[in-house]
Amino acid sequence: MTEHSYGSGYYALLREAAGATWQDYVGHEFVRGLGDGSLPKQAFLNYLKQDYVFLLHFSRAWALGVVKSGSLDEMKTCAATVDALVNHEIQLHVQVCAAEGISENELLETREEFENLAYTRFVIDAGLSGDFLDLMAALAPCVFGYGEIGKRLQADHNADTPYKEWISTYSGNDYQEVCSTVALMLENAVTARLGPDAQDLPRWSALSERFCRATELEVGFWDMGLRLGKLGL
Amino acid sequence: MTEHSYGSGYYALLREAAGATWQDYVGHEFVRGLGDGSLPKQAFLNYLKQDYVFLLHFSRAWALGVVKSGSLDEMKTCAATVDALVNHEIQLHVQVCAAEGISENELLETREEFENLAYTRFVIDAGLSGDFLDLMAALAPCVFGYGEIGKRLQADHNADTPYKEWISTYSGNDYQEVCSTVALMLENAVTARLGPDAQDLPRWSALSERFCRATELEVGFWDMGLRLGKLGL
Amino acid sequence: MTEHSYGSGYYALLREAAGATWQDYVGHEFVRGLGDGSLPKQAFLNYLKQDYVFLLHFSRAWALGVVKSGSLDEMKTCAATVDALVNHEIQLHVQVCAAEGISENELLETREEFENLAYTRFVIDAGLSGDFLDLMAALAPCVFGYGEIGKRLQADHNADTPYKEWISTYSGNDYQEVCSTVALMLENAVTARLGPDAQDLPRWSALSERFCRATELEVGFWDMGLRLGKLGL
Amino acid sequence: MTEHSYGSGYYALLREAAGATWQDYVGHEFVRGLGDGSLPKQAFLNYLKQDYVFLLHFSRAWALGVVKSGSLDEMKTCAATVDALVNHEIQLHVQVCAAEGISENELLETREEFENLAYTRFVIDAGLSGDFLDLMAALAPCVFGYGEIGKRLQADHNADTPYKEWISTYSGNDYQEVCSTVALMLENAVTARLGPDAQDLPRWSALSERFCRATELEVGFWDMGLRLGKLGL
Repeated sequence: MTEHSYGSGYYALLREAAGATWQDYVGHEFVRGLGDGSLPKQAFLNYLKQDYVFLLHFSRAWALGVVKSGSLDEMKTCAATVDALVNHEIQLHVQVCAAEGISENELLETREEFENLAYTRFVIDAGLSGDFLDLMAALAPCVFGYGEIGKRLQADHNADTPYKEWISTYSGNDYQEVCSTVALMLENAVTARLGPDAQDLPRWSALSERFCRATELEVGFWDMGLRLGKLGL
Repeated sequence: MTEHSYGSGYYALLREAAGATWQDYVGHEFVRGLGDGSLPKQAFLNYLKQDYVFLLHFSRAWALGVVKSGSLDEMKTCAATVDALVNHEIQLHVQVCAAEGISENELLETREEFENLAYTRFVIDAGLSGDFLDLMAALAPCVFGYGEIGKRLQADHNADTPYKEWISTYSGNDYQEVCSTVALMLENAVTARLGPDAQDLPRWSALSERFCRATELEVGFWDMGLRLGKLGL
Repeated sequence: MTEHSYGSGYYALLREAAGATWQDYVGHEFVRGLGDGSLPKQAFLNYLKQDYVFLLHFSRAWALGVVKSGSLDEMKTCAATVDALVNHEIQLHVQVCAAEGISENELLETREEFENLAYTRFVIDAGLSGDFLDLMAALAPCVFGYGEIGKRLQADHNADTPYKEWISTYSGNDYQEVCSTVALMLENAVTARLGPDAQDLPRWSALSERFCRATELEVGFWDMGLRLGKLGL
Repeated sequence: MTEHSYGSGYYALLREAAGATWQDYVGHEFVRGLGDGSLPKQAFLNYLKQDYVFLLHFSRAWALGVVKSGSLDEMKTCAATVDALVNHEIQLHVQVCAAEGISENELLETREEFENLAYTRFVIDAGLSGDFLDLMAALAPCVFGYGEIGKRLQADHNADTPYKEWISTYSGNDYQEVCSTVALMLENAVTARLGPDAQDLPRWSALSERFCRATELEVGFWDMGLRLGKLGL
């Protein structure tokens, strides 16, 4: 299995359509800094705080997935994802931040940066304006990109990097399994609606565009991480 | 042009898929009563009051169409429809009701019947859970059905029926033009998303199902009209 | 603690506002039939099938609660509820139905009755048109009413009733705890938005009205249960 | 009447709460450049193109206002606004751009900038996550701010500025009347829900926060205008 092979089918097509933007995302300077340890601590901590706010809205977007599901299986996957995010992942974030001296209160008072706001509201609006597939196309870059980054960095990182825990989280079995489950759901969801040749329909361009836009917004999120690192906490 | 030929393409397929249910709707006892004048006045007045509430929520559904549009043309058609409904059609309803001795206040206090509520909230949920096409499939039976009923009754009604004004409204050029505009938009909207063979995609079944369900809810609305006629105002 | 005392505060006011309609709901002939065992098996089985469809849409409404939450605590409660409904409660329903000879396939093909559709889409639209409180006001009668019915029937039922398992489910600790958690969330949610005298604001009338309407739709749901019992499976 | 006196009541409180951010918005370097004519043409043209995309999504947000209205009067105002935006204002934009050599096709292909995307999606999400008031609080800074800027610049601009037409549009009676209508609707909408002392409720902080955030996003929009002016078309 190659690093990008979550769902060899429709997901692979979306990822391919994002082209160079996808590489800008998964190979971003911020990502390289996590792997070789060169990322300033300040940048990482500010990223964590923004990511906390991100997770709140990302959970809302996944909840919209339950609202828009077309089958019980889709509902189950989305509902489990929401619960995992809200009742576990966010808590994990709180702990990691606490270890770095950032209290939950400070997290809650994090001022949401524009790049952060733009990204999550774009995803939520994909859900409001489109259907389940539009929402999934906008959610996919975050889910699969972090999985791919995790595996990349796991395979190739500096032994001294202080960001090993972050790398373990996203390269670990738990997260990789989430990716596989979501990839399977995405594949089935597209097929169940658009059949085996979805990529030939005009509909596919719209889905690709949403995926690409969300990928650009991921790049913007990393850019923000670097920018905030220069500003101090 | 046959009575059902608004958009000979995709709309015709949807209408056909609704089969006998479509005939139950456009040829309902309530409709026949409008044509031959046998519909009790009480039934008509109660219908008008429910229809006033219906229009409020139907307008909300069309407004959701603006939110979910994929092009400026779609936005223009939906926005014009909302404005026509909210700023003109509802006013017309108020006047017709006033002529029958029903004040605007009484209209506003109309208790929404379950059949009414079920129908409009189903349409709105089609918009929330699906995309623009899902919403249009749920809106279509009302728009086109009333146009078809208007033309039918115009061609074949009792000269004495007290419901000539109602018949004129829906058989008249203004309303028929709305039907043509919406039919063209529907045709283009399906093609722009699903291409020239949309009917072969699994997606089409879902759209047909929404259309059929909305048609059943139209039948339920006429049933309600007869039921309320027996109860008095 | 009285039988209705989930959240002695704002919930008690809503329940009181529903007046006789609340009694029509919790003391409905269908409910009494569950307690004394006089409810025809057919009515119960048809109710179970409709309730399966109900749960799917009720879960969607709770998921909308995550989308509309104003705090992490609200998100946690809603997310846990969605997960419990989708990944556990629905499964339980499948098992109960299987024991009665109704396959999951048959459940999936259940034709949603109008009363059922009207209710869940009303709740979902409360969420779309209003805020978190509007949604909660529409969700509350189902959550708390079943808890109250469960306790009532547990305290007073015929030893021979074949519906003991149903009674145990809703009078049991698990379900009663859900009621307490939701009641606390509701109390806090109202206070956090409208302060300690919410009942004096015009806003309160709108919330009461949503609660009352949802209660009426619960009565309609029981009526449907009796009606379907007369029709056979 | 002072320049900010649209609705002396609740709107004045919101504007006051935005404090210095409000002044950053209405007195932005971009605005001053419109008045004294120092704004580079390039910046203006790029702004017009982004504003075209902005209007599309702003119209969607107003349409959501129809979906979320609590009265026929609110529906009428929102529906008329949507129609004015979609069927007139956007057309005006197309003409102004055409006069500057920007074709409608070029407008349609405008790449939406992040600051633009962040703003409109924030407003739309205010509508999805909150109620009518939340949406209005997020829509208000654009509506009233442009009216205030228009009047300011009308009273004090360089006779040579090439942006007189822009100034006339927003200081003109048509636009000022829109502001008055919306201000009246906002005042009534708050009162109808939260009574005469809304500002004392916790709810008010949330509304103020939405208003302030939207004001910040307006500042970001002007910043974007200056930034794009430096980049060329």
